[in-house]
Amino acid sequence: METLAAALARTRARIEAALRAALTPPGEPSALDQALAHAVMGGGKRVRPCLTLLCAEACGGGTGEGADALRAALAIELLHCYTLVHDDLPAMDNDAERRGQPSVWAKFGEDLAILAGDRLQAMAFANLADCRRAPALLGPFAQAACEVVDGQVADLATAKQPPAAWDEGTLYGIYTLKTAALIRAACQLGAIAADAPAPAQEALAAYGREVGLAFQFVDDLLDADQAAREEGLNAIRVLGGDAVRRLAERHTQAALDALGALPDGAPTLRAFAQSLLTRLA
Amino acid sequence: METLAAALARTRARIEAALRAALTPPGEPSALDQALAHAVMGGGKRVRPCLTLLCAEACGGGTGEGADALRAALAIELLHCYTLVHDDLPAMDNDAERRGQPSVWAKFGEDLAILAGDRLQAMAFANLADCRRAPALLGPFAQAACEVVDGQVADLATAKQPPAAWDEGTLYGIYTLKTAALIRAACQLGAIAADAPAPAQEALAAYGREVGLAFQFVDDLLDADQAAREEGLNAIRVLGGDAVRRLAERHTQAALDALGALPDGAPTLRAFAQSLLTRLA
Repeated sequence: METLAAALARTRARIEAALRAALTPPGEPSALDQALAHAVMGGGKRVRPCLTLLCAEACGGGTGEGADALRAALAIELLHCYTLVHDDLPAMDNDAERRGQPSVWAKFGEDLAILAGDRLQAMAFANLADCRRAPALLGPFAQAACEVVDGQVADLATAKQPPAAWDEGTLYGIYTLKTAALIRAACQLGAIAADAPAPAQEALAAYGREVGLAFQFVDDLLDADQAAREEGLNAIRVLGGDAVRRLAERHTQAALDALGALPDGAPTLRAFAQSLLTRLA
Repeated sequence: METLAAALARTRARIEAALRAALTPPGEPSALDQALAHAVMGGGKRVRPCLTLLCAEACGGGTGEGADALRAALAIELLHCYTLVHDDLPAMDNDAERRGQPSVWAKFGEDLAILAGDRLQAMAFANLADCRRAPALLGPFAQAACEVVDGQVADLATAKQPPAAWDEGTLYGIYTLKTAALIRAACQLGAIAADAPAPAQEALAAYGREVGLAFQFVDDLLDADQAAREEGLNAIRVLGGDAVRRLAERHTQAALDALGALPDGAPTLRAFAQSLLTRLA
């Protein structure tokens, strides 16, 4: 059987190639083209679109050139990239760097960063327009596109409150919208693109949501030292490290349970969920 | 026959009611809800979504509650509103007012204005998800969503050049993308929503493009005094008033010519195109 590492490397290579093709203009790149490429080709892990392809494969669907799964995966990643570009803006998180490079606004200016983010969202939806199953894919994708914004709004509002006002409910509200909604959609769209029956679609949507929450809690645990120094909302500051570790474990288990509804238990997706906790080891 | 004024008032009332329903949350409105309502319910003329409904009617299609035409019209207006919210931002046109009210960023802050614009674009696409003809509507809509961004990028880039570098080609490039693309899509989506045959869809897309250009040139003529005082790109400054008037007339005539492909010549759409020039009288 293909290892998880091999499956991630294989799907990531396909995503990178498709993104590069989508972002390479026929002629000399304009300033906007350069900003778009900088926003997207900056070397992310591509976890979300890889999950779209792996979920489609788990349902027996094709993921090759021209397949709905590959287009849906690109839509997910382009949407994710737009949110990063806008989150970094001075009026938002004011981050001049991302992954060791200048962020889009720091390199190309705020105006072009706002517009590049807008363009990436439009391009994300444009990718779905070419899908055979566009009607089924569009609804869950548009819902996630709304929810990630709601999550960022909630995050900014919470950051302005005194930390004493933060509680587990606030945290779940934000993490569900800001992180889990898009990972849920990534998995659900993979199932839809593979023409999976409704129970499998629901199982993979649930898997994505739980993996998304586990992913966020693990991220917070890995950033624990940084969290202690910073102002922003972080699960460690609200609940303490032990509680957050238990939540990461609980949501990983819930993700694994959701896979029980799939015919063969989806071993690659099972390995992926388990790998989140091993980052803590 | 219904007069143009009556047709516009009738379709506008339907758009206003549908927008209000879409933007009224079930409970107490959050800050984001208020920003969205401020962005959308600020009293625009709703020219674009009215054209969607009038084009659907010209093709014999229904425009009532639940009809694709009404949903497509909302999508067009929500997209238009998002572009206005982002265009007003300090990093873009830096407009603290719109239609005599504070702009969204001036009232709710830059962060919420960026996010409200992002949310409106996502909501625009979400409206198409509920359409019976979502697959056919999505492509032209997503293309227009990309083009309006390209138009704003070109506009900002041109504004930074010396006016001596501006010429008719630059102007057409910007106006076609920034103004005409969305009006073209508004008309085309109306035809698609009405299940019009391909020649009628193409005729109304052409009509929308020409009306969009005429609309922009007329706007420039009406703003001629202001243009003389300002820095921004304006057709009057590039071509002179007489040439712009001739262009407004030429594109109005081209819009009327496009209607010849429709069975009854679409009298309301004909009257709408003609009304653009009467604003100059």
